[in-house]
Amino acid sequence: MSSTRQNRQAARQRGVRRKARNNSGIAAAMAKATVPGAAYQVLSDDDVLKVHRAALELLERVGMGSATPRVIEVALANGCTLSDKGRLCFPRALVEDTLVKAAKSFVVHGRTPEFDFEAGTGTLNFCTGGAAVKMLDIHSRRYRDSTLADLHSLARLCDTLENIQWFARPVVATEIENLLQLDVNTVYACAAGTRKHIATSIVQGSHVREMLPLFDMLAGGVGQFARRPFCTVHATTVVSPMNFAPDSLDVAVAAVDIGMPIHCQTGPQAGATAPAALAGTLAQGCAESLASLTIINLLQPGYPVVMGNWVFVSDLRTGAFSGGGGEQALLGAAAGQMAAFYGVPGGVGAGMTDSKIPDQQAGFEKGLTLLLAGLSNGGLVYESAGMLASLLGCSFESMVIDNELLSSVRRIARGIEVSDATLSVPVVEEAVHGRGHFLGSEQTMALMDSEFVYPQLADRASVDDWHDAGSADMWDRATLRAKEILGAHTPHYISSEIDRRIRDHYKIRLPDPTAV
Amino acid sequence: MSSTRQNRQAARQRGVRRKARNNSGIAAAMAKATVPGAAYQVLSDDDVLKVHRAALELLERVGMGSATPRVIEVALANGCTLSDKGRLCFPRALVEDTLVKAAKSFVVHGRTPEFDFEAGTGTLNFCTGGAAVKMLDIHSRRYRDSTLADLHSLARLCDTLENIQWFARPVVATEIENLLQLDVNTVYACAAGTRKHIATSIVQGSHVREMLPLFDMLAGGVGQFARRPFCTVHATTVVSPMNFAPDSLDVAVAAVDIGMPIHCQTGPQAGATAPAALAGTLAQGCAESLASLTIINLLQPGYPVVMGNWVFVSDLRTGAFSGGGGEQALLGAAAGQMAAFYGVPGGVGAGMTDSKIPDQQAGFEKGLTLLLAGLSNGGLVYESAGMLASLLGCSFESMVIDNELLSSVRRIARGIEVSDATLSVPVVEEAVHGRGHFLGSEQTMALMDSEFVYPQLADRASVDDWHDAGSADMWDRATLRAKEILGAHTPHYISSEIDRRIRDHYKIRLPDPTAV
Repeated sequence: MSSTRQNRQAARQRGVRRKARNNSGIAAAMAKATVPGAAYQVLSDDDVLKVHRAALELLERVGMGSATPRVIEVALANGCTLSDKGRLCFPRALVEDTLVKAAKSFVVHGRTPEFDFEAGTGTLNFCTGGAAVKMLDIHSRRYRDSTLADLHSLARLCDTLENIQWFARPVVATEIENLLQLDVNTVYACAAGTRKHIATSIVQGSHVREMLPLFDMLAGGVGQFARRPFCTVHATTVVSPMNFAPDSLDVAVAAVDIGMPIHCQTGPQAGATAPAALAGTLAQGCAESLASLTIINLLQPGYPVVMGNWVFVSDLRTGAFSGGGGEQALLGAAAGQMAAFYGVPGGVGAGMTDSKIPDQQAGFEKGLTLLLAGLSNGGLVYESAGMLASLLGCSFESMVIDNELLSSVRRIARGIEVSDATLSVPVVEEAVHGRGHFLGSEQTMALMDSEFVYPQLADRASVDDWHDAGSADMWDRATLRAKEILGAHTPHYISSEIDRRIRDHYKIRLPDPTAV
Repeated sequence: MSSTRQNRQAARQRGVRRKARNNSGIAAAMAKATVPGAAYQVLSDDDVLKVHRAALELLERVGMGSATPRVIEVALANGCTLSDKGRLCFPRALVEDTLVKAAKSFVVHGRTPEFDFEAGTGTLNFCTGGAAVKMLDIHSRRYRDSTLADLHSLARLCDTLENIQWFARPVVATEIENLLQLDVNTVYACAAGTRKHIATSIVQGSHVREMLPLFDMLAGGVGQFARRPFCTVHATTVVSPMNFAPDSLDVAVAAVDIGMPIHCQTGPQAGATAPAALAGTLAQGCAESLASLTIINLLQPGYPVVMGNWVFVSDLRTGAFSGGGGEQALLGAAAGQMAAFYGVPGGVGAGMTDSKIPDQQAGFEKGLTLLLAGLSNGGLVYESAGMLASLLGCSFESMVIDNELLSSVRRIARGIEVSDATLSVPVVEEAVHGRGHFLGSEQTMALMDSEFVYPQLADRASVDDWHDAGSADMWDRATLRAKEILGAHTPHYISSEIDRRIRDHYKIRLPDPTAV
């Protein structure tokens, strides 16, 4: 425990330096990781070991089905075995060795360097995520199919939101039927709209190779993407329970070939594709994640992988996925804690809600899941902004609101700084014997911008002032703000020369901004 | 740490037994405390000691102003000193001795015994609270002055809400000008509407004595209230920084005389009536709380007192109280942690929001503050349901929504049970080699009611089903539910004989339910 505490203290020091940098006006620094000053541990140290041992037992005894020939080949060469049912079984020592060799942290590259950050345990970064197929229309407030234009607008919006560090494509461009065109245009739309790190899933391994010229062009030339890989592939390499997803596994293998970082996901649902016992779902999720992590590290030791152990919940009354309950908050925090135990960058799903609109249900479901995930020390928190309707829907207004919620979560993660100076005994003494209050005092003026976060959208007016200003709710205010940003922030982060070359090579569906 | 862990394990066992009782159908058991299985510690052990030492230093060096003659007399007789400025200074040893003698836990009596529970560290109970003077009208959705009828309806509503264990009067009956009548009718309205423990503030010490017959009649006869004191007085015995509030201190002293438990409150606001540094506000809040605790324990060692260290936040742009930010969540959790360190039942303010309506802002502000307070092991969480507008307003719909939010918080506080059975290795093995999923499996059926909490109001329908059902938001659903409960649940928990005797003795403003 004391080493954890020391790490936190050191981390807090880094946080102080980071804060100093913020105050000096480097806007991009605001988008950097929060370094948590306090943590929530849902599992005892003993529980963590038990979960890990159960995961090892599952990998050894049950193994993973549906491995691809290339994966089977490399796995067997390294000590795995095939069961009589054709399942790939992992000896414990191999998994443990993998954890020694696996990348403990790596730089997540922005499209531009000021948005780079370090992924690893003990840091906290928020990412969008999801593959919603519906948009809650900002004008009609009704759901409709999501489009490439929505995706591009979400990228532009996210580009301005200081509490989101990484833009994973939240919606699918449902109007594009050709799957390669879908993958290409998804990356193009994200890259055009934001300077932050981007991420997407890719349909099949061959697309990864066909898209390398796109990645290289966007990075500035042949071979440049591998030097600063600004895009991660989200590969859901597992179909729970305990089977690989061959297509996605191919994608992950191809990603290794071109040097693209991988967010390796599994998504077991308690009670549906994993045990109803939360501990069992967690153990299965760890086993599935470790299987993918092992395979990738066999292909290339120390490869940049995020362990995306997205353990989910089913509502057992219906069997449907449910993203917003207390069980989901617990599982997200526990998955983050397991990643921290493994010492590898972890990815957790949180910020989900089953509500269809930005109402009080969305508020508390997102608040509970994001806060617990944020305090779990796991590393990266996905789905953290914009998602509604159990990940089926997305909304500009929600992304703006969630960015605000994240400012509170990040403030909480920073914790309370305790020192002789902050304990303030002489400050109290002076106030008691002097003016009787602390408003406008020297310490108050010095700390008002570092100790407190001031909301941009959350209303703190009096009842009368709020009423006189039109009784707007959070959704109303977010609608105004989102429209304002989308109207004013119309960057194109691809130079006209590179854009022309990309359009020569691929069918790009977004309008050419240089063509009038 | 390991003893903390052992306590948690033991607590979990108790939780299991409690759960078994729930399942056996005793409805009232649902209203009992949650026993947290996992905790959040915002402060390191070292930080806790530093805060405590700063509090002791403040009590010794700065002391408390405005003590009453009776308090000064008992304090000086026990080693306190008066400074040259007339401030009452507390030697460290006296405060430390008080903590040894102070009540570590006590039974909080319901109006009926099935709602009794134990207050103490390591348990978690949710209470309403506040003294709002405005009601968000359920029909017009506009604010108006709160009334005695509102208070009575809130008591009836709370009586049915299973996640709230204690009913502190959330609104003031603003139409009652006579202050003794206000106090009497407040207690009557609460007692008539709920079987749960009730609480209120009382205007002055003489009222406490004048109300003893009321308490005794409600308890069943002379001397009965002291045997089962079903009502706690909320006494804000402090005016920050570091002064007693003489009237409230009189109330607390009078409460000791009649055997009424005391929730001894202080409410320092960071940056306004306490230092802007959160650690300083916390230290000052601890000092102010310890001062009250010491005085009451000098009057009667081991007296049932809740240490209500309600450390608050000012928005330093305006100086106004703000209840919903990340700083407030941190302070609430830290105050809970300090109470747990002191080993006495702690009371924390959480569940506040600066929003005026039940919107997404209210959702996440309440979610963040309630969750952190709930995980802090402090004991009692106040203001936890129904409050809006920075505690100025109250709403039936909000109380219903917050009760639902609390079901998630309580689920999270229970944590994840890790055992060979829950780790489920054979269950996974069977599913993998069998049906390929866990829906309807033996374990799933066995655990579906204990491992998961199913929302009553939170919507989990598909987009289409939700749309077809009228696209209601959480506020709409809560409005229906609140109206339904208020229409159907019209108990009168005062027998007609006692009611008549009370009405003979006091001017009761609620209509006599037996008079047709």
